[in-house]
Amino acid sequence: MKFVRRLALLGVLCGAASLAGAQPHPSIFITKQEAAAIRAAEGKYPLLDRSLREARATMDSAFAKPIDVPPPGEAGGYEHERHKQNYREMQTAGLLYQITGDVRYARFVRDMLEKYAVLYPTLGAHPLNKNQSAGKLFHQALNEANWLVATTIAYDCVYDFLSPAERARFETNVFRPMASWLSREHPHEFDRIHNHGTWATASVGMLGLVIGDTTYVNDALKGTTRDGSGGFVRQLDLLFSPDGYYMEGPYYIRYALMPFYYFAEAVQRRQPSARLYAYRDSILKKGLYSAVQTAYPNGVFAPINDASRTMSIASPEVVLAVDLAYDRYGPNANLLGAAAIQNDVILNGAGLKVARDLAARTATPKMSFGSVEFTDGPDGKRGGLGILRSGAGQHATMLLMKYGVHGQGHGHFDKLHFTFFDDGREVVPDYGFARWINIEPKLGGRYLPENDTYAMQTIAHNTVTVDQRTQNDANEDKDEAVWPERHFFDASNPAVQAMSARTDKHYAGVAEQRTMLLVRDARLPYPVVVDLFRLTSAAPHSYDYPLHFRGQLIATNTTYARAASLEPLGAKFGYEHLWNEASARTDSTVRMTWLDGNRYYSITTAGAPGTDVIFARTGASDPNFNLIVEPLMIVRRRASDMLFASVIEPHGYFSELEERSTNARGTIESVRVLGSSAEGSVVEVAGKNGLRWTVMVTNGPASATARHALTFGGQTYSWTGNYAVQGVQR
Amino acid sequence: MKFVRRLALLGVLCGAASLAGAQPHPSIFITKQEAAAIRAAEGKYPLLDRSLREARATMDSAFAKPIDVPPPGEAGGYEHERHKQNYREMQTAGLLYQITGDVRYARFVRDMLEKYAVLYPTLGAHPLNKNQSAGKLFHQALNEANWLVATTIAYDCVYDFLSPAERARFETNVFRPMASWLSREHPHEFDRIHNHGTWATASVGMLGLVIGDTTYVNDALKGTTRDGSGGFVRQLDLLFSPDGYYMEGPYYIRYALMPFYYFAEAVQRRQPSARLYAYRDSILKKGLYSAVQTAYPNGVFAPINDASRTMSIASPEVVLAVDLAYDRYGPNANLLGAAAIQNDVILNGAGLKVARDLAARTATPKMSFGSVEFTDGPDGKRGGLGILRSGAGQHATMLLMKYGVHGQGHGHFDKLHFTFFDDGREVVPDYGFARWINIEPKLGGRYLPENDTYAMQTIAHNTVTVDQRTQNDANEDKDEAVWPERHFFDASNPAVQAMSARTDKHYAGVAEQRTMLLVRDARLPYPVVVDLFRLTSAAPHSYDYPLHFRGQLIATNTTYARAASLEPLGAKFGYEHLWNEASARTDSTVRMTWLDGNRYYSITTAGAPGTDVIFARTGASDPNFNLIVEPLMIVRRRASDMLFASVIEPHGYFSELEERSTNARGTIESVRVLGSSAEGSVVEVAGKNGLRWTVMVTNGPASATARHALTFGGQTYSWTGNYAVQGVQR
Repeated sequence: MKFVRRLALLGVLCGAASLAGAQPHPSIFITKQEAAAIRAAEGKYPLLDRSLREARATMDSAFAKPIDVPPPGEAGGYEHERHKQNYREMQTAGLLYQITGDVRYARFVRDMLEKYAVLYPTLGAHPLNKNQSAGKLFHQALNEANWLVATTIAYDCVYDFLSPAERARFETNVFRPMASWLSREHPHEFDRIHNHGTWATASVGMLGLVIGDTTYVNDALKGTTRDGSGGFVRQLDLLFSPDGYYMEGPYYIRYALMPFYYFAEAVQRRQPSARLYAYRDSILKKGLYSAVQTAYPNGVFAPINDASRTMSIASPEVVLAVDLAYDRYGPNANLLGAAAIQNDVILNGAGLKVARDLAARTATPKMSFGSVEFTDGPDGKRGGLGILRSGAGQHATMLLMKYGVHGQGHGHFDKLHFTFFDDGREVVPDYGFARWINIEPKLGGRYLPENDTYAMQTIAHNTVTVDQRTQNDANEDKDEAVWPERHFFDASNPAVQAMSARTDKHYAGVAEQRTMLLVRDARLPYPVVVDLFRLTSAAPHSYDYPLHFRGQLIATNTTYARAASLEPLGAKFGYEHLWNEASARTDSTVRMTWLDGNRYYSITTAGAPGTDVIFARTGASDPNFNLIVEPLMIVRRRASDMLFASVIEPHGYFSELEERSTNARGTIESVRVLGSSAEGSVVEVAGKNGLRWTVMVTNGPASATARHALTFGGQTYSWTGNYAVQGVQR
Repeated sequence: MKFVRRLALLGVLCGAASLAGAQPHPSIFITKQEAAAIRAAEGKYPLLDRSLREARATMDSAFAKPIDVPPPGEAGGYEHERHKQNYREMQTAGLLYQITGDVRYARFVRDMLEKYAVLYPTLGAHPLNKNQSAGKLFHQALNEANWLVATTIAYDCVYDFLSPAERARFETNVFRPMASWLSREHPHEFDRIHNHGTWATASVGMLGLVIGDTTYVNDALKGTTRDGSGGFVRQLDLLFSPDGYYMEGPYYIRYALMPFYYFAEAVQRRQPSARLYAYRDSILKKGLYSAVQTAYPNGVFAPINDASRTMSIASPEVVLAVDLAYDRYGPNANLLGAAAIQNDVILNGAGLKVARDLAARTATPKMSFGSVEFTDGPDGKRGGLGILRSGAGQHATMLLMKYGVHGQGHGHFDKLHFTFFDDGREVVPDYGFARWINIEPKLGGRYLPENDTYAMQTIAHNTVTVDQRTQNDANEDKDEAVWPERHFFDASNPAVQAMSARTDKHYAGVAEQRTMLLVRDARLPYPVVVDLFRLTSAAPHSYDYPLHFRGQLIATNTTYARAASLEPLGAKFGYEHLWNEASARTDSTVRMTWLDGNRYYSITTAGAPGTDVIFARTGASDPNFNLIVEPLMIVRRRASDMLFASVIEPHGYFSELEERSTNARGTIESVRVLGSSAEGSVVEVAGKNGLRWTVMVTNGPASATARHALTFGGQTYSWTGNYAVQGVQR
């Protein structure tokens, strides 16, 4: 079998011998030599100093209070947070003990473990667990694995400080029962191909490496059944596309990076022949890069699928992965740029290296990954994720289009959805998850019902909803089985970058094709988005083209009627959560300008007879005020074939503080569909200063060399390749 | 007459002789000696370097484009903004010419003035003026005065560089016609006791000082009629309370500080015997201090009356006043703290002194004005403004209560209104103005209809609305004629600070008394607000106690019904702008927790039979999407006598980025009215950790020594003075 062959190549079938020998401590994350080097480097590298200062401050606070190891409590409650803080403090104390030699830190770990050694044997499965695999200290096993990873590192650091009796007590009362609970006693969670499984295997494997138990290590690497269906290595096979894109999206790869890197690092140090870092053409390197490369220019992850709006590369998980990758895969300026945004390093040799190399630079490197496309699915053939960028630094422009797989339980029905980042902000947003994470009064901080009824639905995204129904009727299994098809992605010309994808598998009988361009014209102050969303069907449908935004509506050319009382826009598929605030009917161009931050944004959509424009806002059918209230505009039209052709233009400047406003109107004045057929679409964009573009895109098979000539309205439009834009001024 | 006597004392009747002599240039804002000192200081003081760098960058951009002096345009349009930018650039260029000696700067001013000398004689009154005194370059005379102030400083700086013919041309074609237009040709605006009058007089007076025309100077100081009804000195008499509180509020004093200080400084330099800085017991010093002392700890002005939400002490007007006051009234650590927030200094000797003194400090001084009360009205007897503070630095707590005069045309019907600032944010906000200032598509950036229909109305504020009608039925003249009465203000005890005010002149037949306390208890992590709002009447009324907030509703103990469709809460007095999102009826304590930033906030209001709780949101009856959409809660009860007794408690911590939440529930559990009479009110506040306070306040005459003993429910409560809180743990 392929799986077994790979394992053999890896040499991961480490025998008892390799671990049973005289084992140095610490050895899985930091060595005495690295600790000494950090001690010697203090005061030299600002980033290292900052991280050391923070670690010391953490422990100063910890020392100021008595150690508390309370009985288990509810998620988000005091006890839950206390146990989390305890493992953070133990890990910090263990590392500081090695770095400073100060025995107060070692005593702290010992004294806390003594309390756990009393408490843990009294515990059974946590009583408050709901729908999740239970832990004992925590309501879910996942938190227990987090605890074990951190505490194992701490234990490794104080191992030599402890007496044999203490070690025996901790291993017997806490570590071995916990590892067994997480692995052999709950093999379903342990062997699962999922980030929960990664945490479980990493924690048990790391413990095995510290205490010299090969069964734990082999369970971790190969799964409890050893048949290739589970375990850490299998997760490396299945959870990433060949490009390293993680199918649950960046918010989740962020979380999974920690166990992946911690365990890979521990194995690399104790069993280097296993070569986990090199496995699958360095898939762990690709996994990290796919995460930081999909981040917005300010380091925040686009909140696609179930994800928070604020998670960023500055999270401790990404700090760990950036530093280890920099060390293991070789220096890289973009990783230093990421480290500068993170403003933090890990406390081992890798962190020292990053801090040292960053300090040696005269100018802080800017993180800038350019435009990039990721394929999706383990085989890389299930659509993808396209990212077009223009500019550098935190104020770069970024346009993201999602055309990959559903993404399992955390996936959204959001295919052909896009988000747009400009001027340091997510301007056309993704709602992310409907969850107030860890806020106990909000359903214990868990996912809220509105996550299913709104956040996952198609209308919560910037993609067309057909007949006011969600893609695949919100059936997860159906949606998981299909994905859009990549059409083309071309970022070779900085003035006109383009990406395109299509599907006929998300709405029965409807073919959808979206081509998005990022265009830089010398007459415009910022890059603009050109969006051609084409739908074709044998029968007429109602097509809803939504644009979610934040901030304030400033102007629109539509003559709308504002509702005197508000009704929900619909009864299901997320429409029940939208208040219908105003609506208009028009045959001509639809323009709307809004203000977000210090900049204005205008969307201009080509007119078509009998088009409805709806101004809506989230917050309806929300009995517990769980939703965030935000506006959107929907352009709705009933048709068989429809091309929504739009331009989104950032323009002007507003500062309330300075009381200054410039160019609140924008340059683009009209978007006109000249024609659209199975072969291609042609659109004219016109505005002030003589701006006039002809945008031509191919709807048929992708080909960089095919020549096209289409005649609409008596005029022939010719181009070569997948797309062309005429009239752009460099 | 008192006015004439004052003028005589001042010696401001400056004769022609004093100006006609050989006049050095520049002399009204900077001298050659100061310029040389700045040149010598460059590189020594970070704040000065920063301001110089910014000035140079402004001019580098200006030099990169051709000079443009376009014909007049609409407010917020290109031409309008161009003329504003032109005067800023001329002033900057003039100062840099003096500081650097680089003649490119002087040429820039000359070349731009040449263009104005061609354009200005062709202009009549601006055609787009609406309801305001017209300028010629700008739609309103106010902007023309702004232009003249800045350009006069520039002219003074390049005076000696220009040829006599150039000077004659600029004075004949631009300066004199403009000064005449602003003064003798429009005496109503010029002689008005209003910040527009201050700008007009300052601009004309400054020009007079530069070109040696005593008529302009005397018109400016004494008004065109010279009868004591108008002019700069009269404005100093009437626009400030004796404490320096400016009756229009901090947003407007901020704007008025610039002409007040520019002209006072110019007169001080050219005619020091006038002693404007010393006038009225240093009223200009008090005016500045009243502004910075009413600012929130982060430097932003509380947006009371018509005001933006973001205006702060960092505005250029306050930078000017802080630096000049530091120079003229003597060094002050709080002003250095303000300068540190401003991160900017003016380019003259005063700015140099501030930058130098700040650089000499080892630690940046924190701006901390402590608790303070301002009286209102020119006689100081028309109510006031109370501010209670706890803590220091930008995260201090601040509670503000407004009980002064209406404040003329920009005043709101908001008496006994409060705002609350905590953790770096305005947590219980004032809506400020309904205006998108300078945003041309929003009614030319002017005040919007919703300013009158919503922002000014009582329900838009955190004060009780009676019978769903605005105070004094929103009649400005009626409201201008009355004001609340100060009751007491006592900030002597940092654990319990209190302020109280009352009125029976804002609702016919209803007496209102509000006592607010800021309480610091060792069992609570942050200071909490205790609010006792008492209403008495012979007849029953409907009392609405509102709390405006931002962020997300997290939990409430009320069993509310959420509306399936939304209706406005009423038809007038601002209620037409509120959507009724949910309502509940209860007889017991009302609790509501919301999340704002990284902290939770809970309000707990004492229960009373038949109380309605309404959750509402702005945005109804808003045809042009002009309003900002924000939530509020209203506690409504029909009664003759009513005491709304509430506690607002900040608690816990939430970070979505860190995925951490602690103490989302808070400590205070109940607030109970034990009794309320004409003599006093007694309220019990209870919570976790044995917290139990008895809050006793006096409703009768204020007296720090009177002894009170009230018996409610068989128990007698005794205290001495205006208030007492028992049970607070230090």
